Amino acid sequence: MTQDATTIDSVLDALCFDANGLVPAIAQQHDTGEVLMMAWMNRESVAETLLTRRVCYFSRSRGKLWRKGESSGQAQHLVELRLDCDGDTLLVLVNQEGVACHTGRRSCFYRAARDGALEEIAAPLVDPKALYG
Amino acid sequence: MTQDATTIDSVLDALCFDANGLVPAIAQQHDTGEVLMMAWMNRESVAETLLTRRVCYFSRSRGKLWRKGESSGQAQHLVELRLDCDGDTLLVLVNQEGVACHTGRRSCFYRAARDGALEEIAAPLVDPKALYG
Repeated sequence: MTQDATTIDSVLDALCFDANGLVPAIAQQHDTGEVLMMAWMNRESVAETLLTRRVCYFSRSRGKLWRKGESSGQAQHLVELRLDCDGDTLLVLVNQEGVACHTGRRSCFYRAARDGALEEIAAPLVDPKALYG
Repeated sequence: MTQDATTIDSVLDALCFDANGLVPAIAQQHDTGEVLMMAWMNRESVAETLLTRRVCYFSRSRGKLWRKGESSGQAQHLVELRLDCDGDTLLVLVNQEGVACHTGRRSCFYRAARDGALEEIAAPLVDPKALYG
């Protein structure tokens, strides 16, 4: 087997997918530590991510593989894939092109519980209309 | 209402819990950016976390609230709770006492896909026997 195939087998063997065949995957910008988003992966998207080094999720709403950036152009390049102790969550260190959030913000986690309310702590960097036409 | 109650209501209103009444919660060390673990919260654990400022999850295996550190002593103190764009994932900025992982490692994400294998990239800082007796 190639090294890529061996890596993919090692990761898939160590993962515990849920009843729907999915694991949560946390995307973190590799150099700043910013948590960008959380999405889901199935076996196929884990394998494709490791093989192509471009992050691929499984879209639960669309029921198919979701190559991050395929519509928006905001791709994620894989830096390192990590597994947790139970093998039921992935931490995906990435290099994010542009913004991760469909609202045009860098991170999806832009609302914080502060002073009795939810406060928006980041503004869009890009107009969502520019991302999705 | 008190400010705490208003905050809790704002957060609970904005959250979309799954069919089991849960949302994934990513714990991140607030100052270093290290992703420590991922666990689940229900409405009650979100409310308790905001009220007590001590992080409380819902243990799916035990079917009850899990006040992080109640067995191990390795508590998480809430710094800030953030919601993602869809309201279906939480990012919990914490100050972690000691280690987050039941294996005695600081982070649960200590296995990385490298060079055709899964490599352990962090060693235990504490003997798990010391954590759980």
